[in-house]
Amino acid sequence: MEQQTWQDPSRPAAERAADLLGRLTLEEKLAQLSSIWPNSDGDGEDVAPLQGLLTEPDMDLDALLPHGLGQLTRPFGTAPVEPAERARSLAAEQRRIAAANRHGIPAIAHEECLTGFTAWQATVLPTPLAWGATFDPDLVEEAAALIGASLREVGIHQGLSPVLDVVRDPRWGRTEEAIGEDPYLVATIATGYVRGLESSGVVATLKHFAGYASSRGARNHAPVAMGPRELADVVLPPFEMGLREGGARSVMASYVDLDGVPSHGDSWLLTQLLREEWGFTGTVVSDYFGVTFLETSHGVAGSPAEAAVRALTAGVDVELPAVRAYGIPLLKAVRSGDVPESVVDRSVLRVLTQKAELGLLDPGWSPEPPAVREDRPVDLDPPVLRDAARRLAEESVVLLEHRAGALPLAPGARIAVTGPFADEAAAMLGCYSFPRHVGLEYPELPLGVAVPTLLESLRAELPDAEITTGADRDADVIVVAVGDRSGLFGRGTSGEGCDAADLELPENQGALLDELLGGADDAGTADGPPVVLVLFTGRPYALGRWAGRAAAIVQAFFPGEEGGPAVAGVLSGRVNPSGRLPVGVPVHPGGQPAGYLAPPLGQVGDQSSIDPTPLYPFGHGLSYTSFEWTGARLSTTATGTDGTADAEVTVTNTGDRAGTEVVQLYLHDPVAAVVRPVNRLIGYARVDLAPGAAARVRFAFHADLAAYTVAPGRRITDPGTLELRLAASSGDIRHALPLTLTGPERTVGHDRRLRCPAEVTPL
Amino acid sequence: MEQQTWQDPSRPAAERAADLLGRLTLEEKLAQLSSIWPNSDGDGEDVAPLQGLLTEPDMDLDALLPHGLGQLTRPFGTAPVEPAERARSLAAEQRRIAAANRHGIPAIAHEECLTGFTAWQATVLPTPLAWGATFDPDLVEEAAALIGASLREVGIHQGLSPVLDVVRDPRWGRTEEAIGEDPYLVATIATGYVRGLESSGVVATLKHFAGYASSRGARNHAPVAMGPRELADVVLPPFEMGLREGGARSVMASYVDLDGVPSHGDSWLLTQLLREEWGFTGTVVSDYFGVTFLETSHGVAGSPAEAAVRALTAGVDVELPAVRAYGIPLLKAVRSGDVPESVVDRSVLRVLTQKAELGLLDPGWSPEPPAVREDRPVDLDPPVLRDAARRLAEESVVLLEHRAGALPLAPGARIAVTGPFADEAAAMLGCYSFPRHVGLEYPELPLGVAVPTLLESLRAELPDAEITTGADRDADVIVVAVGDRSGLFGRGTSGEGCDAADLELPENQGALLDELLGGADDAGTADGPPVVLVLFTGRPYALGRWAGRAAAIVQAFFPGEEGGPAVAGVLSGRVNPSGRLPVGVPVHPGGQPAGYLAPPLGQVGDQSSIDPTPLYPFGHGLSYTSFEWTGARLSTTATGTDGTADAEVTVTNTGDRAGTEVVQLYLHDPVAAVVRPVNRLIGYARVDLAPGAAARVRFAFHADLAAYTVAPGRRITDPGTLELRLAASSGDIRHALPLTLTGPERTVGHDRRLRCPAEVTPL
Repeated sequence: MEQQTWQDPSRPAAERAADLLGRLTLEEKLAQLSSIWPNSDGDGEDVAPLQGLLTEPDMDLDALLPHGLGQLTRPFGTAPVEPAERARSLAAEQRRIAAANRHGIPAIAHEECLTGFTAWQATVLPTPLAWGATFDPDLVEEAAALIGASLREVGIHQGLSPVLDVVRDPRWGRTEEAIGEDPYLVATIATGYVRGLESSGVVATLKHFAGYASSRGARNHAPVAMGPRELADVVLPPFEMGLREGGARSVMASYVDLDGVPSHGDSWLLTQLLREEWGFTGTVVSDYFGVTFLETSHGVAGSPAEAAVRALTAGVDVELPAVRAYGIPLLKAVRSGDVPESVVDRSVLRVLTQKAELGLLDPGWSPEPPAVREDRPVDLDPPVLRDAARRLAEESVVLLEHRAGALPLAPGARIAVTGPFADEAAAMLGCYSFPRHVGLEYPELPLGVAVPTLLESLRAELPDAEITTGADRDADVIVVAVGDRSGLFGRGTSGEGCDAADLELPENQGALLDELLGGADDAGTADGPPVVLVLFTGRPYALGRWAGRAAAIVQAFFPGEEGGPAVAGVLSGRVNPSGRLPVGVPVHPGGQPAGYLAPPLGQVGDQSSIDPTPLYPFGHGLSYTSFEWTGARLSTTATGTDGTADAEVTVTNTGDRAGTEVVQLYLHDPVAAVVRPVNRLIGYARVDLAPGAAARVRFAFHADLAAYTVAPGRRITDPGTLELRLAASSGDIRHALPLTLTGPERTVGHDRRLRCPAEVTPL
Repeated sequence: MEQQTWQDPSRPAAERAADLLGRLTLEEKLAQLSSIWPNSDGDGEDVAPLQGLLTEPDMDLDALLPHGLGQLTRPFGTAPVEPAERARSLAAEQRRIAAANRHGIPAIAHEECLTGFTAWQATVLPTPLAWGATFDPDLVEEAAALIGASLREVGIHQGLSPVLDVVRDPRWGRTEEAIGEDPYLVATIATGYVRGLESSGVVATLKHFAGYASSRGARNHAPVAMGPRELADVVLPPFEMGLREGGARSVMASYVDLDGVPSHGDSWLLTQLLREEWGFTGTVVSDYFGVTFLETSHGVAGSPAEAAVRALTAGVDVELPAVRAYGIPLLKAVRSGDVPESVVDRSVLRVLTQKAELGLLDPGWSPEPPAVREDRPVDLDPPVLRDAARRLAEESVVLLEHRAGALPLAPGARIAVTGPFADEAAAMLGCYSFPRHVGLEYPELPLGVAVPTLLESLRAELPDAEITTGADRDADVIVVAVGDRSGLFGRGTSGEGCDAADLELPENQGALLDELLGGADDAGTADGPPVVLVLFTGRPYALGRWAGRAAAIVQAFFPGEEGGPAVAGVLSGRVNPSGRLPVGVPVHPGGQPAGYLAPPLGQVGDQSSIDPTPLYPFGHGLSYTSFEWTGARLSTTATGTDGTADAEVTVTNTGDRAGTEVVQLYLHDPVAAVVRPVNRLIGYARVDLAPGAAARVRFAFHADLAAYTVAPGRRITDPGTLELRLAASSGDIRHALPLTLTGPERTVGHDRRLRCPAEVTPL
């Protein structure tokens, strides 16, 4: 048979997609916008939908599959099935799907991969909040490439990561899934992840587009109050970088409504901005059930058909996780003329283009992924990925407070290890790890991967120490581990749907700290040995009650399967802590939201009895060594509103052990056309230094980085004097360098520079 | 000398103002936009500014007064001076001001009057949050007219009230100054106040325009995140009604920035919307120091001159409380061409027009107000005003919870009265009462007016009862009074600048309730007599810990100088409680902001571990009698998108004593173009009924009331089926009446109907 245009791998993907589109019936087109959530019992014999949840009653698979299928939802993520076995059954499902439709088109299979592949026995990496603490996008990129390789090996084409939501209120349960409270940090770290994942051939999905993290009272799915300037300058920039520099090929809409307009029904957002202005050509997928939520939750549609029409018209190409509104309801709506077929075509073209890019339309396409084809065992927790997890964990541990000499622990010390999370694997794992995401549904489930606890890790790390458990008051030091238990929808104290009413340590763990450290009513520390406080948490918690009373405070977030050894390594001194806070730690549990990215009146309490100044600010983190900052200078004192300037500083390790300083560059714009934050991060660099060594750090600043939005759709750089602030944290400015921008006000667009590159030169 | 046009009272005010404007030098013009805050030592000899605070160093009075003066700030409000004496000194000051400028123009004298005239010895009425609880705009109007009469009597022309900010987060310290969390309640009650004040000839000032109540974390002055739809549909409607139906002649800008644009520098808000679209012709005044805050707080101006140019250009006509930016800095800016003189003229014309309207430009104008002219004593706490304060207080008390038989108290009961606010006058008074606003600066100051405490009032109310103080466990009943201490900037637990981190009862008063009622860990109530809990608070506090354990819970807010007798009257049964909550009372202290005016996903916790459902919802309040609701009907089941329908219900008092039901009408719009609240109040009526009596309540609904904003500047009514919900509270829907709007989508503007009139017909 003659090869048709759409089958020809030598032709451009878009051309192939257009050709194929022209050959499809309306039903076949809609099938490409649809998805199913297959049964994961691993038998590979059937693609049965989970009971009741996944398809419209009148849209059974026998009716659907002959028309094709857009996406297969989470083949690995919903049950503990041995990976190689599941890869084989997925291949069988793909074979059935392709065979059932007359063009032989398979589905795109997608999975979650936020802390690694969310599959049974897969590596559990630290959560994104911990990535944020590393300030190390290169390492995140390396890890994501390895995650992608695992996904590809078993036949997954798309990963529903990363989360680019900027933390605006850490009470939000999904704070652990986000990278931090600063858009530049989020953008750069997330873009590292996107580059890594896309480099493996897996489609990265930027989510949640847009505004999800700003819901009222930090309650999951609650409405978002936000104006166009905050949206443009805080929420959207990570997406711009993730698309432009990361090359992400998919975007997921957000559950929330923004000032009344749900993202899934927002034409301005999904089409005008994302496609027409930013030039995005990939696919927009719904968040799970997000299309039907337009009817059932948001009340902007009166029926599944109206929901489908609204979402499709706005720009949601694919309905996840299973076809509901995009099935029969949308079919009827198109037939009755409620939506033109050209709108369907627009989305189908995007889906088919992506399938062409993925090789799914090639004549040589095989349903078997490499692992199945080569019939080899599948290791989803390979040493190389475990090593990446370890390095990420080690770099993410933040030393918040440290009394001289308290750490590292002496090799032969008598150490009492206590606290509910001292010997608890759950302390390490975020909500989107398999064990915490769906593993809780299997009460007898072992973790699937080795997750050493802090206690186990300390015993391994300090073989000569005398380690006891419980509050042993005769010890030389007490290590107390408190934290969160991550889970879905009320099964945890952190995680999706596990929002907090305030930032008080959960489950009455504060009482334990009161006992060990002295509480609010005490003048000083309690009697007893020095206490090292370790926090395994999904969000920052208020520590004001115990500040200055602990010998050391170590913030570990959820450090993943290698988190125990990483924290033990910090306590033993094997690892010199280098993490920096991606979110500020508050003094008091109440008074949220606050956050560092605020103008003067948002940061101080002189007009209010509530002072939101954090206990430990964004960017804060200590080291076992010390650094001196010298020779700060700008290459010029004035440049154009489209000009450049280099900011430089020399950092010297003045201590007696190797360590890492994180040099941070903040922009302070004292006078602008609209209210601006006092400080915002525009650059940073990790600087690894041997004892006595020094390095020159140079930031290549461009005036585009000073741009801000004055009115909807209009972003400018304007003349005036800025300060470039070289800083060890947002609260610890070491050098403030004035720079005057001259010349005319200039309008900048999506093509502006988003990044302030840093160059580190050893001296 | 021939009378000039501007002096001719028979000519239109605007014509007179234009004529006078043409005769003024630039310095004289700017002086009309300026203000001073005179020394209030009462000697009347000098108009000396408060030290350092009030004028630019280079703008002394000898330089200013020969050019004239726009406004005199708070002659009465800053020191405890005997009213008649202060009225005389004010007259002398006005005489000096008029004499010093060549046209003899006096100043507009303004004062605070939020809970009555904020002057020494003036009646202290309940705070606006208590007005909200009355659901009685007519009574508020009556009280405001009396307040206005007091102001006029002593020479005050303008009152800086009412507050139209819709409560969005009750942690905000100024919640006590606001009327409630529903825009319709705020609009109607505030419009009653405006009508009353304006009817006395005093200029009412609508504040704060706009968005002040929505600051981040409820911290005073913190930035506001809000989009144009929420602004248009929640924040602005009270201002529209206050202007259109109330006839307010002044508007005060707000301290905050809204999505980056400070109100004082917002041309769109103050000029395009307020003047060009709404047709407002009065004056816009700055909030105190709000113009200079553009430089010193918001960072949108680099100098006082830039702040002045920005504010004036945006539409701030008068700088309060004292000239800073609008003095020499603005003069230089005009001279150097930074702002055209025509922009100055625009504002001066408004000020002079208002002065003409107030009679200040009339040849017969006398600096002496009636009280001084007639040389009679001044009573700022006259019986008629005290009576209004009493009725407002009585109608504002909300019975939240009531175990049958617990109240009224038996005349001969043994009553233990306890709690920190049982015998405390401060329990009654809001922040803008003289004793709490500036009275705290005078440690030896008596209150100035009689403020009976709850204990004193109970003794007077129940002369035969055996009333003891302290936790007397042998009593028949314990009355425990807890609450707030209102004050300015950290001097209180409620009031301006006294924001709360959460909604936990302040000052550890919860521990007292735990003791009396059983705390969180107890299964039921504590042993001991039944407890009646009385709350004198400036905001709602979380009561979930004690719900169902008290014999009764009485929420009194700040009920003013007659609050003690009012609450005692409720406890004795002399007053049958009729107040309804203007803000919901939450279960838990955390999780703010929440609020009833939310879409489904903002009201329920099924996607979040935080359930914001209130303990007692907006509109809730009990009575000692019972009511039956029957015969609910709509006059039609369908009407046009510009049509009308009458909603009717019969309410019968089925108990054995007279009482008042508040019939509330909510709109539920299940499907709209944007996300809409589940319920919003569109009408209400107080229905007073003798035992056994019945009345028919009819609401004249117009489709305009279903209008909502779909895009900036575009508000529509659209076809579809609504529910008109006749309800006893937002959580207690009695009858849901479907009404279908038919016909085309219709755009509505500022001239739309804002009100759903209610007619109560006794049967």
